[in-house]
Formats: sequence, structure tokens, C-alpha cells
Amino acid sequence: MSAKKSIRITYPSSEKIYIPGEINKIQVGMRKIKLTDTVTMDEEGQEVIKKNNPVIVYDTSGPYSDPKIQIDIRKGLPRIREEWYAKRKDLIWLHHLTSEYGRNRLADKSLDPIRFPQYHLPIRAKEGKNITQLYYAKRRIITPEMEYVTIRENQQIEALGLKSYITPDFVRKEIAAGRAIIPANINHPEAEPMIIGSKFLVKINTNIGNSALSSGMNEEIEKAVWSCKWGGDTLMDLSTGNHIHEAREWIIRNCPVPMGTVPIYQALEKVDGRVEDLSWEIYRDTLIEQAEQGVDYFTIHAALLKEHIDLTATRLTGIVSRGGSIMSKWMQVHNQQNFLYTHFAEICEILKTYDVAVSIGDGLRPGSIYDANDSAQFAELYTMGKLTDMAWDQFVQVIIEGPGHVPMNKIRDNMKEQQYACRNAPFYTLGPLTTDIAPGYDHITSAIGAAQIAWYGTAMICYVTPKEHLGLPNKEDVRNGVIAYKIAAHAADLAKGHPGAQVRDNALSKARFEFRWKDRFNLSLDPERAMKYYKESAVTDGDYCTMCGPNFCAMRLSKELTQACRK
Amino acid sequence: MSAKKSIRITYPSSEKIYIPGEINKIQVGMRKIKLTDTVTMDEEGQEVIKKNNPVIVYDTSGPYSDPKIQIDIRKGLPRIREEWYAKRKDLIWLHHLTSEYGRNRLADKSLDPIRFPQYHLPIRAKEGKNITQLYYAKRRIITPEMEYVTIRENQQIEALGLKSYITPDFVRKEIAAGRAIIPANINHPEAEPMIIGSKFLVKINTNIGNSALSSGMNEEIEKAVWSCKWGGDTLMDLSTGNHIHEAREWIIRNCPVPMGTVPIYQALEKVDGRVEDLSWEIYRDTLIEQAEQGVDYFTIHAALLKEHIDLTATRLTGIVSRGGSIMSKWMQVHNQQNFLYTHFAEICEILKTYDVAVSIGDGLRPGSIYDANDSAQFAELYTMGKLTDMAWDQFVQVIIEGPGHVPMNKIRDNMKEQQYACRNAPFYTLGPLTTDIAPGYDHITSAIGAAQIAWYGTAMICYVTPKEHLGLPNKEDVRNGVIAYKIAAHAADLAKGHPGAQVRDNALSKARFEFRWKDRFNLSLDPERAMKYYKESAVTDGDYCTMCGPNFCAMRLSKELTQACRK
Repeated sequence: MSAKKSIRITYPSSEKIYIPGEINKIQVGMRKIKLTDTVTMDEEGQEVIKKNNPVIVYDTSGPYSDPKIQIDIRKGLPRIREEWYAKRKDLIWLHHLTSEYGRNRLADKSLDPIRFPQYHLPIRAKEGKNITQLYYAKRRIITPEMEYVTIRENQQIEALGLKSYITPDFVRKEIAAGRAIIPANINHPEAEPMIIGSKFLVKINTNIGNSALSSGMNEEIEKAVWSCKWGGDTLMDLSTGNHIHEAREWIIRNCPVPMGTVPIYQALEKVDGRVEDLSWEIYRDTLIEQAEQGVDYFTIHAALLKEHIDLTATRLTGIVSRGGSIMSKWMQVHNQQNFLYTHFAEICEILKTYDVAVSIGDGLRPGSIYDANDSAQFAELYTMGKLTDMAWDQFVQVIIEGPGHVPMNKIRDNMKEQQYACRNAPFYTLGPLTTDIAPGYDHITSAIGAAQIAWYGTAMICYVTPKEHLGLPNKEDVRNGVIAYKIAAHAADLAKGHPGAQVRDNALSKARFEFRWKDRFNLSLDPERAMKYYKESAVTDGDYCTMCGPNFCAMRLSKELTQACRK
Repeated sequence: MSAKKSIRITYPSSEKIYIPGEINKIQVGMRKIKLTDTVTMDEEGQEVIKKNNPVIVYDTSGPYSDPKIQIDIRKGLPRIREEWYAKRKDLIWLHHLTSEYGRNRLADKSLDPIRFPQYHLPIRAKEGKNITQLYYAKRRIITPEMEYVTIRENQQIEALGLKSYITPDFVRKEIAAGRAIIPANINHPEAEPMIIGSKFLVKINTNIGNSALSSGMNEEIEKAVWSCKWGGDTLMDLSTGNHIHEAREWIIRNCPVPMGTVPIYQALEKVDGRVEDLSWEIYRDTLIEQAEQGVDYFTIHAALLKEHIDLTATRLTGIVSRGGSIMSKWMQVHNQQNFLYTHFAEICEILKTYDVAVSIGDGLRPGSIYDANDSAQFAELYTMGKLTDMAWDQFVQVIIEGPGHVPMNKIRDNMKEQQYACRNAPFYTLGPLTTDIAPGYDHITSAIGAAQIAWYGTAMICYVTPKEHLGLPNKEDVRNGVIAYKIAAHAADLAKGHPGAQVRDNALSKARFEFRWKDRFNLSLDPERAMKYYKESAVTDGDYCTMCGPNFCAMRLSKELTQACRK
């Protein structure tokens, strides 16, 4: 692992800006897109110049887009949150890793060449203390993280000089009610806090991870930053190959967004892929190992019960969740209840110690249109509701994973059932895909469903790439998947009326109407591609494009009309 | 124009089949996808083989996918409908073109090298006769076209041996009520009849056409067939360049799907792009010229009135429809009412003579999220309702064009207003795009909106390619646009519960669960891309793929589980 090159993110005509906190010493990074002037002619033929306000957009690129910050992936990103809690009395800095596995890896000198070079003492809650955002929210304390996400959510509104309903106390109340979470493991101070909840901007998750068959560590770190560049809000590391522990350390230390994992994958690696050898002890140690590295949320398939398995017998596509199929097999081999369920209270004990959020996994999500909204899916959903209560009892932050494959007419029912069963804990869905017949285009089949379910209230949507069901995505696939999901999320933000969401649409459309081509590209979700497509067929930078040609340009005619009306 | 090469469409593991009519001598082409067997082991380790029924799908590829039919684009496609009406008493075969422009082009020897080599006598209704599908439907006559589309719509259901609610008389009633149309100009007998209505499969339109700046004739014919290959149901020729008349003849004679045009574009060419020189006489002659060539539906921007123009003054993006901006400019220059409106009754006289359907164009569709559902848009919509009545008075078939750019929360209102204002005449929308911020990805921003509005009742959705707003699409862009719209249409068919729509999803998902990879690809909307993506990363054709690797394959674990349960 000799990854020494500096990774950078640049956006055209954009500047990194920081908005300071009012309550806490925080600096919230945003991207300011500068626009050119609108130039028109007055009646005497004189140029009239009007300034266009810059557009400030939500920015997931972290320090990578700030040229003033030195990036060295061997050192990791600045640990911004560390100073926020340096003086806190409820935390303790440990001198040893708590996980046995973690200690063994650290002691193994043969791993030195691939190990992340820096070592940070793990942090946890002091005995008897609760340090979760949910706990603080219930205690009516506004944490720096809460103020941070408040500023972040209001990026457009503040620029307009307007007041938004999203205040620090509003954020606190949403968290206290369990309707929103801030996934922010105390051991991942590099990550910029963000909020997941139905009253906030819809977030998107992206996945990275090597399987046993392909892909190396260097490449995965680059993919992580690549995903942040295009707008990924959280990143799930689904690696199943060798050196998961070391690879994760590299990624977390260089990751400006919260990271999630599915710990059962690594636990299974530890028993060489033999499901029958999985045990609570191995799993427990894996949770602690990953929590002390800084994983911000864990997907845990604790709601899939032994009695649910029979419900899948009439399915067309059985169990399509990896975690779900692993736990089903384990239950069958041992003829015992799911150990993630029976040990869920202990799991929450661990999670609250580091403020790791739990994402309750949907092991029985439907894998086809035929299986959507069936009894297996909903039986698990109601168990998820019970587990939500158990987690909340310990002030663990909860999100609920959802499907999958669902036809449009059944999407709203999914949302309603989830809200009812899980008492408005944030919903986090994979798509859903609205048809099964388009492998190779499942970023589109699922963006259609994701936009809808996000509009109905889903707080975070997990991206799907064009390679879904077919193979591992490459960089272009990741880009296509992220942009499809940014579109779905933004379409939902507009439909929900998120304050300020429409500012960017308006600015881009105004630029289009005024033939300010470059502003259009700079304001778009993927300036590079818009520019590329334009250049492929452009023969002019003037008052028309190749779509309609000079005689047929509706926009030009319409502009002439407007000018004529004014005379 | 020496295009001699034979164009063919092939689909893997597919066979062209024909279902005969019961009332009429018709043969309805469909595509039968053959599947491999499901092979499992019984308890004694013996192979158990189960046949999988072939899946029969709706087929827009016409004769191009039938190896038994000789294709020669210099001769054109078989004129299948000609024999259906050879003996009809209400038709007359003309010995001269009615359009003056058409006659002049025919007499111009310099055009011989680029002219389509065959000449067919134009057909029209006899004086005093009405020949539209709407007229027949109201007279309680089931035409061959009605029986044809009945069989076509039921492709899956018939194969399952079930009965569908879609009967010939149901089709007739929907047409009689104005809720559906069969665009089938008597002069386009090469086209296979199809139906556009909210109770039928959602259809998609694709556009071709050169602008003055690029693209040749040969290429356009290939694009037309390319669009049919991927599933385009109708084709709009939006050409604005030279030799529109001759190019259109080549395309119509070789086009197995109905074709639409926007006649004002050609009329404008005839006056060298000078909007002020447009006149009713030139437009009228253009309508007749195109009707006698066989154009199946005309987009006519007759509902944009002079008094509506002021309503656009507060818009962000003014008038973005080409037809709308042309007519607005004309009205302004002449200070007169829209001549398409004042002459609408005469227009209908022409249309009914050939059974050309009218697609009432939305010249004031919103061009940005900001302008969605504004007073200009709805003022025009209500005028469309009046024109619908006028057209129906003459038994002209009507569809209504719709937006455009609309956020998700305003899509349902669009549908409801249209249904109310236009008394359930079929709605035909462009997208709508659900956000403005993703140029380069507008096939996705709009597929999200198209799927929703089609679910709510829109009968046909006009595709958008990734190049929308940026330039002219190439072949790959057309493919990406068509597939995105096939996805949106099919997602809506599933959500609406169209009889048999889910058969293909179920077959594909079953194949996926059984690791019958090739069946999966063959059943998908784009087998070539699915196969390509799979091959890019595949290292096995066995019981897992590179997404999860051998230890983590949920489907494999789930299959083992199912087998274990059975023992």
C-alpha cells in the first residue's frame, strides 16, 4: 500500500467556502458556484449588465475540494470533530484496542507494509455514560454535530437571506423523536456530520468493496473519494476479500462522509466462509473491532426470525439479501433463533458506547416484483419495529432498511407500513426497482422507485449501478449510479418542498434561457458530462444549439418575443 | 440515396410468430422468447428437468425481425393494410397528388436520384364519406385495425390461456369514447396498427430528424429502424433540413410503426425560415402533402392563443416549444389570432379525409420546474379541450400533448386537469423532467416523471435522450433514451395491472434465481448490454457471480435452503 499520490476533487467555477457556527466553533464547508453576468441590450443598443448571485450547494467532497488543505492519504484527513470533544468528560481514550482480533492484527508485523501508517487511540464512552446524539437530544442538548447539520441543510436559504424552519432545536427535536439520526461514531472524527431524516434533504448511500474475486485496496480508496465527488452522502464498505481490517482503516481515515458496514460479512470471513461456524462471540468481537475503527453505522439483520423463513417458501426469488441468507442458513443448521436477535440488547450496549447507529437490515426484502410486499417482508418489518424500541431504550440511533423490488403501486404501502411499524424511524431503501426486466439499466429502474419513495418520506436511498445483478461496478458505473440517485433525491427534495432546493434548478434554467452555456454546465450535477455532450455536437456558442438549429430555436424566438413585448 | 443494404433486426433466442385474427384476415406479429429448461436434482441425485414456457412479448420491429420476409428499403415494407381495404367503397385512389408542393417535387427531375423509387397512388375518403377509426367505432363497426390491436395487447394473456378484458368490442368502445386512438393513415399501409389509450399498454414515441446543421438521410432511416428495434411504438420525424419531403417518403415506406410530424416545421422551411411569411395556404398544402405521404398523426399547435402570450411574461424560461414559439412570433408580427386555431375546422376536414390523428401541441408547456403548472400552461390546456370537441365533431382522432418540466408533486394535477379539460382524450407527454439540474442525464430525470404520469393515466410518453438540451442524439443516445422509456412504460403497466404485464418480470426473475444466465439476458429489454456487462466482470457461468463471490451469494444460499427445506 504505497498510495502516496494526492487525490483531489475539483469542480468548475467553484470555490470552497465555510460557514461558521454561532453556538459552536465549527466551520461548515460548502461549494459556491460562481456565475457570469446576464448581458442584454437596452433600447438605445447599450449593454445592460446584471449580476447573477452565486449558487451555494451542499458539498460532500470534504477537504478534497479545498486547495488550502494538504491531502496525504498516508496521514488521513483532518480530524475536525476531535477538537469538539477534546474536553468532554463522558469520553475515555483507550490505550489498547478492545477487540481481540484488532489487537492480533496490530501485533502482526507481517501486516506492516499494508497497514495505515498512523495510529489513533480508540475512544469510547466512560462507564455508565451515554454519548449518543439521541441521548443528548433527549437531554435537550444541542451538540456541535446538530448545529453543523443545521447550517449544512440550509445552504441555499441562508444565501437568500431567508429563514428556514430547520433550526438547531428543530434538528434536536427530530433526533430526540427518533425521526432523524446523525451517524457519527466518536472514532471517525474525519467525517463531516450529516443528518438522515424525512424532514431533511434526501441522502444517498453508495457502496464500495472488493469481493474475493477482484479489485484492490488502492482502487477502493479512489472509489470512495470518487463517490464523494459526485455527491455520495454515506459510504458502505461491503468488502469481503482479504485484509478487510487494514483496507477499512485506510478508507475510514480518508473518508469525509459517514461509513457503514455489514459486520456479518467480516465475521464470515473470520470463519473461512463456513456459515455454521459463525457465533455470537466472533460477531461481537467484530462489532467492537469495527466500532473502534470508526464505522458510523452497522447493518444488522436481527429482525429475520427463524419463524419467518417458512414464509419465503412460496417466493419466486427466495432470500436475496446476503446477510439474510447467511443468517437463515445459520438458523437452519443450528435450529436456533437468530443470534443477532437474541443478543440485540448486548449489541445495543456496544453501539451506544461509540455512538454507532444501527441500520436494521431487511434480510427478507423482495428480490423480484412477484415477491413485493409479501408476508415474509412485512413479518420482518414488524420485528424491526420491536428492535427499534429496544435500541431506543438504550438511546441507540436507528434507521430501517427497505426494499428492493417493488412495483410503483405498492411503494406507498411500503412507506406507510414502515412508518407505522417502526414509529417513524428513518427509512433507508435500496431503490426500489420498479421492474425486473432491465438488467444493465437498474440504476434507472430503481431511480424511478427511489424518487417516489423518497418523496413519500424515505430519508436515504441506497444507490444502484447499471451493473446491479451482473457484476462489480467500475468507476463509470459508480458515477452513473450516483448521479441517477442524486437526481432521484433532488426530485424528491423539490416535491417535498425542501427550503431552497429549487434555487439550483432556477439558476440553471435561467442560464439556459439566457444562453449562458458555461453557467449551465457549472450548475449541473455532472458538469463534465454536460460539457462533453455539448461539445460533441456543438458548432456554436451563440444563441442556438444543434438540437434545433438557428431557424428553429424556441428559446431564441421566445427571447426576441420577450424583448419585443418590453418595447 | 443508394441505400441498398438490407437492414435486419435480430433478438437472441427469439422467433417471430404470428397470431391470426378471428374476424378479419390479419396476422399479428409477436416475438417468442424461448427459454431453457430448469434442471434440478432429486433426492436420489437424479436430474429433474422442467420445461419453461416461452415468453411472448409485444414486438415493434415489424418485418425487420422476420427472416422470411425480404427487406429491400428501395421497395419499402409489405403494405399489409392495403388488402384489408382493397374492396372498401368509401375510399378513392387518386391519380394525382392533391398538394401543389407535392406535385412540384414529383415533377422535379433533379430530385430523381434521391427520390424513393416506388410510387403509390394516394388514397382518400370519397366525397361525403368518413373513414376514421373513430367514425367506425361510433358506428359500432369493428375494423381490422381494432381486432389487430386487441390481439397485440393481449400477447401474454393469450399465451397463458387466460381471458383479458381487452376484447375487440372493448377496443371499439374506448375509441368511440375518444379515450383511445389508432393512428393509421390510410396512406401508410406498411405500419402495424397500435392503440394509444390509458387502458392499454403505455406506448413510447421516439424522435428522429436532421436539423439544418447535421445528419443525413441514410442515417435517419437506420435510426428509425434502430428505434423500432429497441421498442419505439411511434416515430416522430422532426426533420428541419433540406429534402424533407423525399426523406420522409423513404422513412414512411420503410417504417413499421405509425409516424408523426409537426407540419409547421416544413411549412417554415418553405418560407426560408421567415416566420412572418407563414400563411394558412402554405400550411394547408403542407398538411395535404404529408397526409398523402402517409403521416399518421400531426402535432398542431392550435391551442396557443394570442391572449395566452402575455401569460408567459413572468416565466423563467418563456416558450420552449418550437411550434409554440413560431406561432407566437407569427401572431405578434401580424397582430392576428393563431391561424391554426381559426382554421381548425378546416384542418379537421383534411385530417378526416385520410384518417390522420391530431396531436394537439402544447406550445406553452413549461420549460423549467419554476414554470410548471402555471396559468399559461393551463390556459392553453383548456383551449385544447375546446379543440378536442371540434375534432370529435368531425370524428377526427385526438391526443393531447403535455409537459415538459414538472416536479413530482405537481404531476398528478397535470393528469387530472388534462382528463377534465379534454374529457379523457389520451394524454401524450414529453417526460416530464422532474428536475432541471442534470443535463446529460435527462433520460433519467424524465423517466422518473414519465413512469409516474403514465401510471396516473398518460397513454403515450415521448422519449428524451441523454443529449436533451445539449445536442442531437447519436445511435447510442437513442438506444439509452428508448430503453429508459420502455422501463418507465413497463413500470407503469405493472402499476396499472395491465393483464399479463408481469409475465416477463416473473420469467426473468425465475431465471435469475435458477442461474439460467442466458435466459435472463434473452428476456431483458436490452440483451446485448446485459450480456456485455456480465462478460466484463464474469469469471464464472456457474452458481454465483462477481457481485458477491462464491461465499456470499445470497441466491445460492437461498437455493440450498429451499432444497434443504424440501428434504
